[in-house]
Amino acid sequence: MTQKPGMKMPSKGARFSKYLPIVEWGRNYRRKDLAGDLLAAVIVTIMLIPQSLAYAMLAGLPPEIGLYASILPLVAYALFGTSRTLAVGPVAVASLMTAAAAGSIAAQGTPEYIAAALMLALLSGLILLAMGLFRLGFLANFLSHPVISGFITASGLIIAASQLKHIFGISVSGHTLLEIVPQLGAHLSETNGPTLIIGASAIIFLFWSRSGLKRTLIGLRLSESTAAMFTRTAPVFAVAGGILAVQFLGLEAAGVRIVGEVPSGLPALAMPQLSPDLMTALIGSAALISLVGFVESVSVAQTLAAKRRQRVDPNQELIGLGTANLAAGFSGGYPVTGGFARSAVNFDAGAQTPAAGIFTAIGIALAALFLTPVLYALPIAVLGATIIVAVLSLVDLSAIKRAWIYSKRDFIAMMGTILITLTAGVELGIMVGVGLAILLHLYHTSRPHFAIVGQVPGTQHFRNVDRHDVQLSECVLTLRVDESLYFANSRFFEDLVYKEIADRPQITHLVLMCPAVNMIDESGLASLEAINARLKEAGVALHLSEVKGPVMDRLNRTDFLENLTGNVYLHQYQAMQDLDKDCAERAMNAALYSRARLASAPGD
Amino acid sequence: MTQKPGMKMPSKGARFSKYLPIVEWGRNYRRKDLAGDLLAAVIVTIMLIPQSLAYAMLAGLPPEIGLYASILPLVAYALFGTSRTLAVGPVAVASLMTAAAAGSIAAQGTPEYIAAALMLALLSGLILLAMGLFRLGFLANFLSHPVISGFITASGLIIAASQLKHIFGISVSGHTLLEIVPQLGAHLSETNGPTLIIGASAIIFLFWSRSGLKRTLIGLRLSESTAAMFTRTAPVFAVAGGILAVQFLGLEAAGVRIVGEVPSGLPALAMPQLSPDLMTALIGSAALISLVGFVESVSVAQTLAAKRRQRVDPNQELIGLGTANLAAGFSGGYPVTGGFARSAVNFDAGAQTPAAGIFTAIGIALAALFLTPVLYALPIAVLGATIIVAVLSLVDLSAIKRAWIYSKRDFIAMMGTILITLTAGVELGIMVGVGLAILLHLYHTSRPHFAIVGQVPGTQHFRNVDRHDVQLSECVLTLRVDESLYFANSRFFEDLVYKEIADRPQITHLVLMCPAVNMIDESGLASLEAINARLKEAGVALHLSEVKGPVMDRLNRTDFLENLTGNVYLHQYQAMQDLDKDCAERAMNAALYSRARLASAPGD
Repeated sequence: MTQKPGMKMPSKGARFSKYLPIVEWGRNYRRKDLAGDLLAAVIVTIMLIPQSLAYAMLAGLPPEIGLYASILPLVAYALFGTSRTLAVGPVAVASLMTAAAAGSIAAQGTPEYIAAALMLALLSGLILLAMGLFRLGFLANFLSHPVISGFITASGLIIAASQLKHIFGISVSGHTLLEIVPQLGAHLSETNGPTLIIGASAIIFLFWSRSGLKRTLIGLRLSESTAAMFTRTAPVFAVAGGILAVQFLGLEAAGVRIVGEVPSGLPALAMPQLSPDLMTALIGSAALISLVGFVESVSVAQTLAAKRRQRVDPNQELIGLGTANLAAGFSGGYPVTGGFARSAVNFDAGAQTPAAGIFTAIGIALAALFLTPVLYALPIAVLGATIIVAVLSLVDLSAIKRAWIYSKRDFIAMMGTILITLTAGVELGIMVGVGLAILLHLYHTSRPHFAIVGQVPGTQHFRNVDRHDVQLSECVLTLRVDESLYFANSRFFEDLVYKEIADRPQITHLVLMCPAVNMIDESGLASLEAINARLKEAGVALHLSEVKGPVMDRLNRTDFLENLTGNVYLHQYQAMQDLDKDCAERAMNAALYSRARLASAPGD
Repeated sequence: MTQKPGMKMPSKGARFSKYLPIVEWGRNYRRKDLAGDLLAAVIVTIMLIPQSLAYAMLAGLPPEIGLYASILPLVAYALFGTSRTLAVGPVAVASLMTAAAAGSIAAQGTPEYIAAALMLALLSGLILLAMGLFRLGFLANFLSHPVISGFITASGLIIAASQLKHIFGISVSGHTLLEIVPQLGAHLSETNGPTLIIGASAIIFLFWSRSGLKRTLIGLRLSESTAAMFTRTAPVFAVAGGILAVQFLGLEAAGVRIVGEVPSGLPALAMPQLSPDLMTALIGSAALISLVGFVESVSVAQTLAAKRRQRVDPNQELIGLGTANLAAGFSGGYPVTGGFARSAVNFDAGAQTPAAGIFTAIGIALAALFLTPVLYALPIAVLGATIIVAVLSLVDLSAIKRAWIYSKRDFIAMMGTILITLTAGVELGIMVGVGLAILLHLYHTSRPHFAIVGQVPGTQHFRNVDRHDVQLSECVLTLRVDESLYFANSRFFEDLVYKEIADRPQITHLVLMCPAVNMIDESGLASLEAINARLKEAGVALHLSEVKGPVMDRLNRTDFLENLTGNVYLHQYQAMQDLDKDCAERAMNAALYSRARLASAPGD
């Protein structure tokens, strides 16, 4: 069997490599892959150092923990992940969620807080791994597009707001806009001038680098993707500028907060303390972090894979991300997942295989070993600026408009997610969003669309009488219900049938056309039985047409078909041919009968 | 417009009577209605006195509260309800749920416990009324058949087990089988002999009256329904026998527990104490009691109405039951709803209008005024026996088998409900049941059935290639997905399409046949866009056929149709006629091209 381009199938004998993809790509590793992977690793490392420090700060953790989370987890993902180009590590949304979850256990800066973050990584790892092994990746489908998009937008806004305090050099706490914004207002008078200058300069520089610098580089004949890639390294220059400014202008004495002492060295491998209480308290948060991280990561991985006609296997991705988080949990890190920006840079810089991730891990390890003394004077405001500029690109307000135009249900789910996330926090936000999407879906299917259908002239096709110019029968009513018949809509459906029949006294045959009925559950069956009995008393025969195989199989196990007053037709066209004949006969009989009646009993 | 028999429509001008049905039937009230209503009221009163006492005991409340709940609520329902024959009052399942909810607030026998029961009635009334006014009756649809049936069965088993203590004359507490059964075993040695004799005799008598007595009465030329009606009054004879036995044999001294002093008089109208804490604590339980009561009540009302070709309006039923519960809350009662057995008796005894309910209320009021001294010596064991015999008819184990045969999903939902109700209580049981039914439904739709379809020879109809003998095209693959495309299945669907295409390299056209796609949400649209883009790269055109109007409307608001590589066909038959032509041309071109290629570049 030949293959379509872009649709690679795993080779048959590769059972082992299915769970350890490195066996597959490692065997075929070539020199030209090495060049691409090395260049990508250098650029991603440069990008990842400030990000790791910044996101650790966002998560309320010491900066070295951000570095630790960018070493072993990358190696673990390189061994078990299926994406060739996904770059894992600390990301903004997972950091925010970590801060919310760990903050419910202990105060920032305490050993308990750090232990909680570690435990979140461990639990996330276990959850993702279990989902991968039991092939539960489909659970992530319940995070619908509008919900995840709304959640990311709201998270971006919260994160940006939470970092403004670093730009102004003031103290503010809180995990929601409702908590953060009033405090910002109250403390604004305490703004530290030099901090604001550094922070604002960094923001301006970083925004400029995204547009102006990119244009300049393109003007220098770099390709668009290369230019974009280099602009992603701009935070490193902001960091360097900030460090130099603090050191040469003595800004620490002027009240500019700096990173301070960062312990140098590699993370110690250690088993986290397994307190059952802590695990119980954090398991829900860990599940949410895992799901959100997985959905984001897989969509990034799939987008990049599609560009090179590769595929990622969602269930193996769960295993890859699971081991990455386990590695984070055992090496002093916190929850990690695939990041969009860094993966795009990795891709654009020419990463060919997951080896790029391993090289990046080596780069970060070297930084943890030798670079930490340099970071001492790094102003917190620069890290805050890095985060703000990074997360504002997550905010996608146009998605709200698209949802409004396309579907009010999707719009409501998205806005609900955004508003609850902004006002009541990330965990409640994502849960309400998922619940809302499910309820709106159920509500929609509980009042299904239906149509009275007639024959499209010249065809054997039957369509909605309100939308198409179709032919109707005199005594046969054909109703097409556009939904499975199940508990949420069976009573609605029953009432609907009664109403349509009551409105049409001339009807003697009702055909339920079932091409859209994908399932009939017990409640639906009970309604069909009730309809059959009720119509029988009213002298109307009930027929079914175009019932699907699986639905028919199930009906055959009951006595419904025996009691059915009419027939089951494979094709609606057959039903009409058959029943129209019957109508003609009935009309003739009725005419004869009424004439006979008139003749025999004129006084009755 | 003429009417079908059995499909009565409300008269157009009757806006007011819509919310106050008594205006409609009161205007047309006739002498012959009165005869039927009076007879029915007498028999229902005789039946309801022991039931009211017994169910109050089941709810952990003093006996007079059962009587109070059978006076004003009946009048309220008669004014606002739409069923002609539904008899409301205390019922077994709502009493069990009341005991569970009030028991979580205070100990039985305390004033707080009674206040909690009163508050449950008040809250249920408000919830039902609100659901009726806002037309939220559809919410009850989420209690699917298997869940409600399993819940009633499990409740019946718990109730029967909980009453065994009265038969044995021992002390046992608990709301679940897990709590009750071990205690029964532990205390069995304390059995009171005379109590057991009375209780067992009552059970045997009541069971015999259902079969033997009924047969005897039928032998005496009574019709089956009249006989059934009279056997329903058997509990009164058991009660009378019990009272006589206690009085003449001096059984109270022998340790037989009796009802004791029952205050005589009518309930005082009083505003219940409105403690916000109590309301908050009970609102969830009240909502569950309301929903379960409503579903049971409406199904009884609809069954009876159908027999006489009347209709009940579910939203007005909510108002009727809501006012009945409010009346219970303001007159010292507890939650009430329509009961199956008493409504059937009411119907069989010839009740014609809700006036029968008002007459029944008068009967119970007379009992509360004058009969209570007689009830002093009534043995509790007889009430226990009454309950046991009544609830065992609720237990329907054959429904489990039917669900197993018809649908494993329905079976799982039913068994889950039964097991959780039995082991963890009624509230958790019903909630888990509803949740389980929804999750199973979502899981089912998340992995939709799909079929490769071909033309049924001699027709324009297309069916599943695995089930029918159909004709397939050479280069066109037609895939029919049997589900709406939405967030829960969009990724599954995407993978499915890629797989089917990857397996068939000769295919150049993919037609998605959409008669069963009732909705495409934003996630589904994103998947369609991805499929379109991916297939384009693979050289396969994507077409849609038989897309429904509402789905098409929505797609027209996006740029998806502009970017679609293929066409949208109204009818699958058109699609095949059009595309088969294209296949033939392509085949010819391919042949020419490969010949040309062979001729020009043999060495390539």
